[in-house]
Amino acid sequence: MKRPCSGGAGLALLDSPLDEMNDEMTTLTVTHKNGEYPILIGANLLDNGQNIRSFVAGNQVMIVTNETVSKLYLAKVHSQLTEFQCNTLVLPDGEAYKTLETMNKIIDALLAQHHHRDTTLIALGGGVVGDMTGFAAACYQRGVNFIQIPTTLLSQVDASIGGKTGVNHPLGKNLIGAFHQPQAVIIDINTLNTLPDREYRAGIAEIIKAALILDAEFFDYLETNMPALLARDPAVLMYSIKTACQIKRDVVMQDEKEHGVRALLNFGHTFGHAIENNLGYGQWLHGEAVAMGMILAADLSKQLNWLSAAETERIYAVIKQAGLPTQCPSTLKCAKLMSAMLDDKKVLANQLRLILLKAIGHAVITDEVGNETLTHFLDQHL
Amino acid sequence: MKRPCSGGAGLALLDSPLDEMNDEMTTLTVTHKNGEYPILIGANLLDNGQNIRSFVAGNQVMIVTNETVSKLYLAKVHSQLTEFQCNTLVLPDGEAYKTLETMNKIIDALLAQHHHRDTTLIALGGGVVGDMTGFAAACYQRGVNFIQIPTTLLSQVDASIGGKTGVNHPLGKNLIGAFHQPQAVIIDINTLNTLPDREYRAGIAEIIKAALILDAEFFDYLETNMPALLARDPAVLMYSIKTACQIKRDVVMQDEKEHGVRALLNFGHTFGHAIENNLGYGQWLHGEAVAMGMILAADLSKQLNWLSAAETERIYAVIKQAGLPTQCPSTLKCAKLMSAMLDDKKVLANQLRLILLKAIGHAVITDEVGNETLTHFLDQHL
Repeated sequence: MKRPCSGGAGLALLDSPLDEMNDEMTTLTVTHKNGEYPILIGANLLDNGQNIRSFVAGNQVMIVTNETVSKLYLAKVHSQLTEFQCNTLVLPDGEAYKTLETMNKIIDALLAQHHHRDTTLIALGGGVVGDMTGFAAACYQRGVNFIQIPTTLLSQVDASIGGKTGVNHPLGKNLIGAFHQPQAVIIDINTLNTLPDREYRAGIAEIIKAALILDAEFFDYLETNMPALLARDPAVLMYSIKTACQIKRDVVMQDEKEHGVRALLNFGHTFGHAIENNLGYGQWLHGEAVAMGMILAADLSKQLNWLSAAETERIYAVIKQAGLPTQCPSTLKCAKLMSAMLDDKKVLANQLRLILLKAIGHAVITDEVGNETLTHFLDQHL
Repeated sequence: MKRPCSGGAGLALLDSPLDEMNDEMTTLTVTHKNGEYPILIGANLLDNGQNIRSFVAGNQVMIVTNETVSKLYLAKVHSQLTEFQCNTLVLPDGEAYKTLETMNKIIDALLAQHHHRDTTLIALGGGVVGDMTGFAAACYQRGVNFIQIPTTLLSQVDASIGGKTGVNHPLGKNLIGAFHQPQAVIIDINTLNTLPDREYRAGIAEIIKAALILDAEFFDYLETNMPALLARDPAVLMYSIKTACQIKRDVVMQDEKEHGVRALLNFGHTFGHAIENNLGYGQWLHGEAVAMGMILAADLSKQLNWLSAAETERIYAVIKQAGLPTQCPSTLKCAKLMSAMLDDKKVLANQLRLILLKAIGHAVITDEVGNETLTHFLDQHL
């Protein structure tokens, strides 16, 4: 398998997914400016409390989760942490609650329970819980430790890795936040057994993204194995998660704070964020909006003669096969989408920076597309 | 003059304050993990716009100030920045407004004016404006540039240097925040001409603190020159600001994120924060509470036989000479103060870490003082 950003400190991925069908844990190591942390990937990881406890430095922990996940996994995780002062906070579920107000509730809970600078926050849930808990950890007393235990496919392959934390603002996603690296990311693939199908498919969008930007052979693999991935075949799932994590790991290690290559991970996201913002958070899942964003980015790449019609067709096919959207909602309007995109974080000096494709597995960061070209393109599509 | 933490990259301080009586600018350089920034100190610095403009990287700036300072200096600073998209935000004045809600107003303003990742925030005001603007800069789109233009003595010698940003929580000061280094700190000592006497004296508290923790000769100097400093004699003022800035600079360069020696700068602050919290923010100025905190820390140091009675007396005398409090308000209660102190950020594993004195100019970080000893000590004083 081609590794376009090789040289990381983690274990190498094996070539054949069938070799990997076992209960063993794979560890990928992420190094960053202030240290390093492991991504543990495996089945039944939450059944062994040592996997969590070994990343707690002090004697206080606060598990932050949401109403849905708490019913499924809170008791299990809590029971592994009885040797610490272990408090829990259950937040309402959903992107609509990813706000500064909810983040402040985490701070309130930490103070009410007298948590000190050596406390450890544990984010148990999907991307919303992880982003918000990570941001609370970044801000509480100017920074405390936290552990990511992502329980959705999307957060396992994307959101929990790389230290991006934050909350939404009424005017856009993740506009308030911080870079704050976790002590560990613990991916127990068994937690996916309880994930609703729609959310599972939304997670596949980020796996497809990882392949599209940097790994053509992984894209081939997904084309072949999409039915098995949709059926949650353990071997295909394990291989897909590990490969997507490794791609993300390799990118963020090269560019921790998104001054350059890390922007590739935003493929589909500039369009996607604008779609989410226009529809209202919670209408489409993040992964669904990213899928639609990837379709738009592929179409624009084709229109610029950067991407062949055949490859564009393959991208449509895989996204469709994954049960993800390939058509913009009829209520979307070009002007509103452009306005939301121009407010996106990726904008420098009023010039949109887009991530487009030269080929499957070869994304580029470009500011060559003028706003007029983009408006015309969107007008055709919306 | 002794420099206990020498080796910095800035200009050396001259030995005699009289040599420095001129309009020239002194630059101290602060190096940190991600780069370096200058502290410019001098008279009339805001009259030369190049002092500000050279630290603006993009084409957008947002000046954040408060109702008091805006009337005095906003027009002057704004007029220097006409070549940029220059927006302004005037916040209400006072520690009571140093909240997450007010910080969010800065974010709202940035978004309303379409500020991008390459924008520069300018904090024009005292510690409250600086801490909050710095925190907004840390969080806006996960981090944008900012420039500190401190206009109070306290923020010039302490708050604006070292990258601590944040807001208060009803349960304590600066409990939500981030480390975020500015592009530059621009100290125009002329701005002190408009500073009310009470605030000026509160700033002297932090100058005394700098001397007490690390520089006995500077303390001697302050004893001798306190009348001239209170009279805002330019030469004495310039020398005092530069020396206090250099002490702070040397400490934060050794320990950017307060894992060790930087805690020395909290001398008087663990008591002081608890006093502020108990009296309600805005009753006592921060510098006044710190002065009282230094008195308590000196008394406790004496009781432990770490500090001589004669030196303790000298500390009382200088703080009194500066017109700062040396008596706790009668409404303070020991139990409430202890409770507030145990919630302070400096607490690890429920054991208070205090900064006490072995001598004038020699502070130590200690966790040798048990909570019972401390309670007994406070009972005697309150």
